[in-house]
This record gives sequence, C-alpha cells and structure tokens, in this order.
Amino acid sequence: MDGNLDHKVESIREIFESGDLSRFAGIAEGMRAPDAAEVLTALPEELHIPFFKSMEQEMASEVLTLVDEGVSRELLGHLIVDEIVPLIDYMASDDATDIINLLNADMAGAVLRRISREDYEDVSELLKFDEESAGGLMARELVTIRAGKLISDVIATLRSELDSIEHIQYIYVVDSVGVLLGTIPVINLLITDPGRKVEEVMDRDILTVTADTDQGEVAAMFAKYDLYSMPVVDENGRLAGRITVDDIIDVIEEEATEDITMMAGTGDEEFYERSPVKLSRARLPWLLTGLFGGIASALIMHNFKESLESLITLVFFVPVIMAMGGNVGIQASAIVVRELALGGLSVSQTGGKLLRELKVSIINGLVIGTVLLVTVTVWQSDIRLGVLLGLCMFIIICWATVMGAFIPLMLKKANIDPALATGPFITTFNDILGIAIYLGIASLFLEWLGKG
Amino acid sequence: MDGNLDHKVESIREIFESGDLSRFAGIAEGMRAPDAAEVLTALPEELHIPFFKSMEQEMASEVLTLVDEGVSRELLGHLIVDEIVPLIDYMASDDATDIINLLNADMAGAVLRRISREDYEDVSELLKFDEESAGGLMARELVTIRAGKLISDVIATLRSELDSIEHIQYIYVVDSVGVLLGTIPVINLLITDPGRKVEEVMDRDILTVTADTDQGEVAAMFAKYDLYSMPVVDENGRLAGRITVDDIIDVIEEEATEDITMMAGTGDEEFYERSPVKLSRARLPWLLTGLFGGIASALIMHNFKESLESLITLVFFVPVIMAMGGNVGIQASAIVVRELALGGLSVSQTGGKLLRELKVSIINGLVIGTVLLVTVTVWQSDIRLGVLLGLCMFIIICWATVMGAFIPLMLKKANIDPALATGPFITTFNDILGIAIYLGIASLFLEWLGKG
Repeated sequence: MDGNLDHKVESIREIFESGDLSRFAGIAEGMRAPDAAEVLTALPEELHIPFFKSMEQEMASEVLTLVDEGVSRELLGHLIVDEIVPLIDYMASDDATDIINLLNADMAGAVLRRISREDYEDVSELLKFDEESAGGLMARELVTIRAGKLISDVIATLRSELDSIEHIQYIYVVDSVGVLLGTIPVINLLITDPGRKVEEVMDRDILTVTADTDQGEVAAMFAKYDLYSMPVVDENGRLAGRITVDDIIDVIEEEATEDITMMAGTGDEEFYERSPVKLSRARLPWLLTGLFGGIASALIMHNFKESLESLITLVFFVPVIMAMGGNVGIQASAIVVRELALGGLSVSQTGGKLLRELKVSIINGLVIGTVLLVTVTVWQSDIRLGVLLGLCMFIIICWATVMGAFIPLMLKKANIDPALATGPFITTFNDILGIAIYLGIASLFLEWLGKG
Repeated sequence: MDGNLDHKVESIREIFESGDLSRFAGIAEGMRAPDAAEVLTALPEELHIPFFKSMEQEMASEVLTLVDEGVSRELLGHLIVDEIVPLIDYMASDDATDIINLLNADMAGAVLRRISREDYEDVSELLKFDEESAGGLMARELVTIRAGKLISDVIATLRSELDSIEHIQYIYVVDSVGVLLGTIPVINLLITDPGRKVEEVMDRDILTVTADTDQGEVAAMFAKYDLYSMPVVDENGRLAGRITVDDIIDVIEEEATEDITMMAGTGDEEFYERSPVKLSRARLPWLLTGLFGGIASALIMHNFKESLESLITLVFFVPVIMAMGGNVGIQASAIVVRELALGGLSVSQTGGKLLRELKVSIINGLVIGTVLLVTVTVWQSDIRLGVLLGLCMFIIICWATVMGAFIPLMLKKANIDPALATGPFITTFNDILGIAIYLGIASLFLEWLGKG
C-alpha cells in the first residue's frame, strides 16, 4: 500500500492542520492495525501521539506492539500508567512482556501492579528470560487438556478460550503435573469421535525446545521442520509456553539484518534510530577501525619508502592489490557465514570447505593474476614488473580467500558470532597484509627489476 | 542434531562399507524426513543414491523436495521415469512443479504423461508461473465450499480431503464460478452451529494476491499481517491457489541470502554448487570488475606521477583514503537496501533519508577528518599536509555516504534490485573517485605544501 500510504499520511496531516479534531477521531477506524502502524511511523513525529490517541484501545494496543522499538519507546514516553495498563490488558503475554521491557523500572513496576492477576503472573514469568531466547519468544497463552479427558471436553475448553488466544493450531495434552505428553491438531477434533480419550488420538512424536534455547536455533528448527508453532518445556518436560511462526519470521529477518549490518560495519540498532548523532555513533567505531588500519598501511608504505621512490610505478598498483585482497576475503567469508546461519554447514565439515576454497582461490588467482600480468606488461612495457604483480596477486588471492573461509569457522567453533568475520575488521586486516606482502616481495626483487 | 548428524552419517558409511545391504534397507526408518534429507546431504556423493533408494517411497518423495536444488538435480539424474512418477504422486502440487522444473524437457514430458489426471492439471497450471512469483509459490490443493452450503457440509468435505492437504487453516467460500467470497478459520467450525450457512459465518475482509505478484512482496505481506496462509486469485477474483507460511520462510531466507551474496560479490547460485570451477565462475565477474577498477586507479595515479614523485608522502595515504570511502559507502547503502527490503522505507521518503545521511556524514567526516589531521601533523611534523588530508577525508566521507544512500533509492525507483548498490560495483566506483579527489586536491595545493 505504498501509494495508498502516502495518500493516507497526507490526508491525516491535512486534517490535523485544519484543526478540526472531530474529524481526527475516526481516522484510524476501518484500518487494519498493521496499516495504522505503518501510517503512524510515516507521519511527522509531532503527529504520532495525536494519531495514536485517536485510536480505539484495542487497535492502539496492537499498534504499540507493531511499530519499531524506537517508536514504541517514544509513544510510551508520552503515556501515563493509567493509559498503559488497559493497552497491556489487550496484549498476549509475549507482547506485553516486550512492552514492559521498554519501560523504566519505576513505570514497569507501577504497570505490573495494576494489570490483571493472570497477566501479572504470565509477564513476571516471561520477564525472566533473555529476549533472544525461546523464553523471550514464547507466549504463555495456550490450550491445554489433562490426559484422561475426552475430545468433547477439549471442544468445550476451546469454546471458552477462543477469544483470548490467537492462532490456535494444537491442543496440548499434559499430565497432572503439567508434563507435555502429546499434541492434537485442531482440525483432527472435527473428524474424531467426541467420546474418545485425548491420549488415544494425540500425536506423541513432538518437537520441543527449552526456554534457554537461542532464538536462531529455534528459527532453524521452524524452517527445517516446516513448523507453525512449537511448545516450550522446562527441564522436567513441563509445558511452559508456545512459540508461533509469525514471531519466527521476525527472528529470521532480524538475524539476516544483523548479518548484513555486521558486514556493512554498522550497529543493528540503526534500524530503530533516527537521530543523526546516534546513527553516527553506531557507525564510528567501525570507521575508526578502518582509519587505524589505513594508518597502519601508511606506516608499512613508509617503511618501503626507498623502494617506492626508486620505482614509483610500484605505487600505482597498491589500490588494486588492496582491493582484490578485500574482495576475495569478503566473498569467501560471506558465503561461509551465510551457510553457517542457514544451518547448511557444520563445523565438522571445516576441512572439506577449506580445501574447496583453496581450489577456488587457485583458479581465481591464476585468472586474475594472468590478466594483471598481461595488462602491466603491455602498459609498462616491462615483463618483469608484470610477472611480479601477477605473482603477488596470485599469492594474495589464495591467502585472503582461505583466511576468509577459515576465520568464521574458527569463530563459530569458539562460540563467537561468525558474522564478525565479514565486517571491516577482516577487510582491514586483509588490506594491511596485502600491502605488506606486495611491497615485501617487490623490495626483494628490486634488483632483478633493474632498480634499487 | 549436529553431533547426532555426524554419528548417523558415520554409521551409514560403516554399514555401506560392510557390504551387508540388508542392514541398509531400514536405516532411514523412524527418521523424520528433514533429518533424512540432512543426513543424505552430508553423506559422500557416492552414497546419496544407495541411501535414497533405501527409503520408503513416501519418505523419498519428501526428501527429494527438501534437499538443496543441486542435490535433487543429482538424485533425479539417477532415476528413470518409472521411479520418478510415484514420487511425484506423493507430492503437493507446488513441490511437484518444482521437481518437474528440474527435469529436462523430454523427462518432464514423459513424467507429466504418467502422473494422475488431477496432478497433471494442477502441475500444468502451475508450470505457467515464474518460480519467484506468487504463482510459483502456491499449491492448488485447498478446501473450497460453495456459498449456500452449510457448516455441516464443510465438515463432511474436510473429512474426505484431510489426507491429501497439509496445514489446513482456512476453508475458502466461493461462488458458482469460483470467485472467492470469504474465508472461515477451521477452528470456528468447532464452535459454530452446523446448520448455519457458510456465508453467514465467513470473514469477508481477506487479503489476497494475484499469481504474478513478486515473491518478495508476498513475503512482506505475510510478515506485516502475521499471516499463516494467503489465497491467490486471478484478475477476476477467482480462487487459483494458496500460499502457506512454511514456503514464505524459505523465501525470506532466500531473499536475505541474495542481498548478502550481492553485497559480497558472488552469485547466489553458490549455495547449490560444490564444484570449485563453477564456484570460481560465480565469483570471477565481480573480481574482474574490481580488477578493472584497480587498473583505472593505477591510471589515475599514473596521471599524477609527477606530484607523487615530488612528494612521496602523499602515496602513503592512498590506502586510507580509498578504504574509508568504501567503508562509509557500504554502511549507508547496506542500511538503505535493508530498510527497502523490509518495507520500512518507501521511496517517497527519499529526501528525508538523504538529509539524514548528509548530517551523519558531516559528523563522521569531522571526527575521522580531525583524527587524521592530528595523526598526520604529528607523524610528518607538517600541519599543512595534515590539513590537506583531513580536508580530503571530510569531502570523501560526505560524498561517499550520500552516494551510498542515493544510488539504491534511485535503483529502486527504476525497478532495479537496489542490492546491486551494495556490491563491488559501488565500492570500486567509490575507490576510484576517492583517489581522484584526493590526488586532484593535493596537486592543486602542491605549491602551498612547499613542493612541486
């Protein structure tokens, strides 16, 4: 609704400027909450709160959970406890927990004291978990039934809970202490004799995770097994909550964004930031790394000052040597990082992967090295210089490719995010090394080149 | 199941080496199909077919749809038409179409002539659509009911179709010519009086797409509206098929992978390739771009040969100027590309976005420029050189940042994949421009610097 969005934003802006606030009241009516959230985000900041407050509570509650973290934080900053409590009451426990996590400790405490007892219990439970774990993703609302009950009991339970739980896929069968025994797909209830016991029809082969499982691992399970929802259990197998696929889509997008921002050398908080000062703060550390790397390169070149002065032509090829080392390193590392992220590569395959990268780099090194050899030989009418540059290029391509594949695998083994290896750190490292290898070899052969 | 996977692979390898093929027959039994697909991929290539053929047909059929394209292509290459047909018969129409798309024209024709009439009709219909469109994602299997029928009729229909359709979320209500009128969530059937007419209970507010909608747009709708499935209609509103969220997860991962490989300068076919020659072929075009960019830089430096000879110190800072232009350009472009991909940025916001990037670049340029000014002044005991380098750095950071944000927005407006702007093309372009700006300004000020 891109064009539509612009139109809506324009009309809201116009109504606000007209000052006729009675026209403002109904403007979000009939919109879907995700559209209202999109419009709100696109509006100028001074209209966020007027537009938000013009919404019915149920929609406002949903919009609060749908906008980016930066915007919800901003909206919450303009609300008092009395306004926040009814919004929380409309939310599922996972969303309520996320919103309460955005409040400062005083506000959070005040809100927690005022929400319903049931919500309070659910949220206090969920607040214990890391936001990036299965516990941080799960909601506590789900439909459970005790073993021994009948299918007709399940249907009665469903009728009473249908309003409060979204996206019900499965009924969870538990024992007397809450241990998960099996699941029944909702659709099976339609075709099963209502007099049968639940444990006779339930599926016992179920995939579960514990609350401390990393969200990336959970997402990989959803992707691999085509899941729509998954139960979370504690260490004793007791049912603790349920994760649904709509939240997993957010996780997958979030993890891809993390990899991309890491590659680009920016913090992933960028997505919630609008202030130029904070944006620049997110990027500066990476740029300073690059700057110090560049100064290190300058120091190396300074060390080879005499060689460079005696053969200024050597200088012309510093950029190409530097760029190619960086390029092949990023190619190799980005592929390995993505394969690791998608679960298509296990660390046990390290040897084979490195061997393959070595072979690829030999082919690429031969091709690029030869093209450079010929170009330099023709341009500078000097086959010795051509051979030197071709050789240096070959060595640097092989080295940078293998390193590019090796470093993320090592980081993964050490339980460090392998995506670090795609960022400016590795590029800078490869730049410096490339220049050192090139000038080192060139200096050794200066006499052979007929100079020095 | 990482450790588990290694163990399973080892035990299969051992059984095969023992030559006792009777032990081989049951080895995939009791495994989940996604696990069997993972084991098959991890096995050495010569064991793929023996392991695949040891599976029951139903599992083999599923495994064939779950392994990477390269592996399914390889497996299909070892099967005859008589073996392929029963595997296709087990598949949903979308998977069947994907597999038939992997066969050569002769094989595909032979298989199509042999599958059931119903499958044939579905697959022929689906083969018309682009693989990366809604039509390429949808399956034809869904539960429809004509308006005028009762809820009890729906339940009867469900009973008869339950075995052949997976993940049923909604019943689709259509008129006499197949136009989609509304949907009924399956769970509502449990709590509705079976004597009511379907149009009285159906939800009329439904999101649909047409078959030619791009898969990225479809995925964005699933993410935005938290959908589990979505109907596809033709231009007259007639129901054509249904897309489910499990396929959308694959799309989201695929699109993120595309962006990442584009950024890294490799083809995204890399993921299905194991041959070093083909891998190197995917990477070489981008490397050659970088190489020619590097040679262009060399030509520019050659043009400034005299300036460089008269002040060799200038040379030392070529790498830092080059690296920083590339870094800030990638930061800005990667953020814009990702925001565009996630739908959080519309082209109409271009002006605001560019202004923000300009502000960020001024801050970053001032910080980095000042650090460089001080470093160079102290190191070279020459404040003029320090000022020159600080100034050049500032100009290049501002220019490269704004370009980094501007180019993807322009590409998007021109309907070209904006991710192109994150790859080696832009980095190379920024490298060359940075060197030209730096040496150009330096040459102008050579006299002031006391040289030339």
